[in-house]
Amino acid sequence: MSRPTPLSGFPEWLPEQRAIEQRIVESIRRTFELHGFAPLETRAVEPLDQLLRKGETSQEVYLLHRLQADAGDPSDSALGLHFDLTVPFARYVLEHAGRLRFPFRRYQIQKAWRGERPQEGRYREFRQADIDVVDRDTLPLHHDVEVVLAAADALSGMPVPPVMIRTNNRKVCEGFYRGIGLSDPAAALRAVDKLDKLGPEGVAALLAETAGATGAQARACLALGGITTADASFVDRVRALGVTDPLLDEGLAELVSVVQTTGEHVPGVVVADLSVARGLDYYTGTVYEIGLPGSGLSIGGGGRYDNLASAGADRFPGVGISIGVTRLLGLLFGRDALTVSRPVPTCVLVALPDEEGRPAAYRIATALRRRGIATEVSPSAAKYGRQIRYADRRGIPYVWFPGDSAAGDEVKDIRSGEQGPADPLTWSPPAADLHPAVTAAGHARP
Amino acid sequence: MSRPTPLSGFPEWLPEQRAIEQRIVESIRRTFELHGFAPLETRAVEPLDQLLRKGETSQEVYLLHRLQADAGDPSDSALGLHFDLTVPFARYVLEHAGRLRFPFRRYQIQKAWRGERPQEGRYREFRQADIDVVDRDTLPLHHDVEVVLAAADALSGMPVPPVMIRTNNRKVCEGFYRGIGLSDPAAALRAVDKLDKLGPEGVAALLAETAGATGAQARACLALGGITTADASFVDRVRALGVTDPLLDEGLAELVSVVQTTGEHVPGVVVADLSVARGLDYYTGTVYEIGLPGSGLSIGGGGRYDNLASAGADRFPGVGISIGVTRLLGLLFGRDALTVSRPVPTCVLVALPDEEGRPAAYRIATALRRRGIATEVSPSAAKYGRQIRYADRRGIPYVWFPGDSAAGDEVKDIRSGEQGPADPLTWSPPAADLHPAVTAAGHARP
Repeated sequence: MSRPTPLSGFPEWLPEQRAIEQRIVESIRRTFELHGFAPLETRAVEPLDQLLRKGETSQEVYLLHRLQADAGDPSDSALGLHFDLTVPFARYVLEHAGRLRFPFRRYQIQKAWRGERPQEGRYREFRQADIDVVDRDTLPLHHDVEVVLAAADALSGMPVPPVMIRTNNRKVCEGFYRGIGLSDPAAALRAVDKLDKLGPEGVAALLAETAGATGAQARACLALGGITTADASFVDRVRALGVTDPLLDEGLAELVSVVQTTGEHVPGVVVADLSVARGLDYYTGTVYEIGLPGSGLSIGGGGRYDNLASAGADRFPGVGISIGVTRLLGLLFGRDALTVSRPVPTCVLVALPDEEGRPAAYRIATALRRRGIATEVSPSAAKYGRQIRYADRRGIPYVWFPGDSAAGDEVKDIRSGEQGPADPLTWSPPAADLHPAVTAAGHARP
Repeated sequence: MSRPTPLSGFPEWLPEQRAIEQRIVESIRRTFELHGFAPLETRAVEPLDQLLRKGETSQEVYLLHRLQADAGDPSDSALGLHFDLTVPFARYVLEHAGRLRFPFRRYQIQKAWRGERPQEGRYREFRQADIDVVDRDTLPLHHDVEVVLAAADALSGMPVPPVMIRTNNRKVCEGFYRGIGLSDPAAALRAVDKLDKLGPEGVAALLAETAGATGAQARACLALGGITTADASFVDRVRALGVTDPLLDEGLAELVSVVQTTGEHVPGVVVADLSVARGLDYYTGTVYEIGLPGSGLSIGGGGRYDNLASAGADRFPGVGISIGVTRLLGLLFGRDALTVSRPVPTCVLVALPDEEGRPAAYRIATALRRRGIATEVSPSAAKYGRQIRYADRRGIPYVWFPGDSAAGDEVKDIRSGEQGPADPLTWSPPAADLHPAVTAAGHARP
């Protein structure tokens, strides 16, 4: 066969990059667990009607077909790959409600797929790390704060630049739009959501076209969207626009609570930004957008959804936030912003004096592994210089030389050249060498 | 909407089960890394010609179609979900060969999909945990041993019953079939592979039909397949069948080496079983089948593939083994064979004296989390009895009671009822309580 070529939109990392991703996913997982979120996973596929039930026509869903489908077998008709982890989670909650304990806190770190047109920075396959809390019937507002605290903690524990979480509340926008006399607040929201793409004039035109806004109404919408504050002072600026509506009041009170409480526990991370709309239709209150300062790009987001999971009289309001792991890594890899101390987990290479020494080398490796030290045995009994080069090329810091009947084993730090006697039952590397370490570029270990 | 129902073949675990899976996947990952395998991941999709190039017509591939495909856009024509992790890995090696260091050792823990007919024990979506080693041009036989040692180590580190790895060598079978005069050894192999399903008479009939075997030839094939030994004595039994062929000799020597060396390092795990064929066409030498004794079912397997990854003059022989995580867990969950000490990661619940105490409770939680103790704050300031019940229902072992200006904090072990003063900056639970623990049923913590 000929050499295969990449598929646009389906990223694959090199081993060094995958080592970084693995460490970062582990770090996110550990933080989510520290915040009491339980691991969960849903299947990759959903019935198409589930995927589209909130009118997600903008999501380009991948449908599945069996290559060898039997005519008339309905068992896999109309299945699609999920495009996020919230819709499958809501379905999971409804399906298993009788066996879950509420409030239910879970994290989910999985791939999702979107049949986007191929373009720069758009992935067709990507990994997300989500946390959500759902409860039965009602879900207190403090959960809107808790998911932000957990996400901010996860992001601050990673060797990535500080992030900014912009937050808004759908009730503020919808109440405001209603208060200025727009009869279709959802259409107005969709128009304002395009501010980044279309600019103020484009949005004003779209507001006129799709929401029937007058020039004054469009200006009011844009004025609301222009308000950003790091504290609760956005309330005064909204009030100064002279609009009153009960839903607006409710939204402002919620947003104040979220901004103030997060400001107390993770200062400097969360700001109120009344232009944040989030594309997805299912949000009903708080919304978040996680941005990497300097990139202008979103690396995650989320919000409150009070009606996504409901069946008959059962209703499970939820709130969640999602970190776009692939998006974040794609940005950072593009800037060479992260390095890993070695692309392999191996800490020690056991060298072979000759091929007959392999069983003894396996026994040394087993002893080291039992004590948590990742160890490989040299693939060949080449000259020691070549075996050391094998380790060096992979960044393996230690080479172990088995002794013979006269002399004991020795271990060499191939970075410093230091070599000394060692016993596989007691020797340990410094803690910093035990696992590959990820660092922001420029601060890598020399 | 109405309550959703499960999709046949797409398993989803309850939180308790997922907690077990998470711990088991972590344990497998840790062991693979201890053996020096680097993390790797490939995209979920492959071009259809890649998936089918080894004639895998028996694999029922799921094809993808964009719901909103543009007529004439070829960018996602003929993509399918991978049905294993070996074919994508071989493709990855060819695609990135110039940037990999050989021999290349990697593990890959991912989902795969097969559009099987729905039936008991058959999954359409399932997780596998694979390790492989590939090298350029040639790959020494000791790697066939190393992957078995790593897999055996991974499986023995889990709270599952001891496994048995049955091993064979394609060269033994093909050489033997050739030696008795069968002109299509591959057809004979495919027939013998159905021994479990069809029984000896069914296989004999199939050998006659598809490989043109006489009655005597079929009997010889079945005699070979009936040989199983825990050591190298299978050689004598094969020799006793009176067949000679150079490929048979080569295969026997390889199989002796694998059985003897694994027997030295992981005694009692690996047996030679000359009925093991493995369905996939790409194997060329050693093959493995991992069985859970008592179930008669395979929970993994693998083998040597010398020709899977090759392009032009480049050739990358490989050997690997795969643990069927979903299959294994499905079997064990079906028998209630595993329990987890709690379905949530949370070790401590910080109780709330009243809703005003929430900020102080968040500070306590932050202090505990910083020291690696998974902590939740109570979802409501209900009576303490109700808050303790919240923890009890989830198996959270400790409830933390914030003090007031007069008294300090206290922590209660809600299993024993013991309660005493505690400082979030210094208190730690016993190590056994820090994380949920998975145990084989019957040996769970009381």
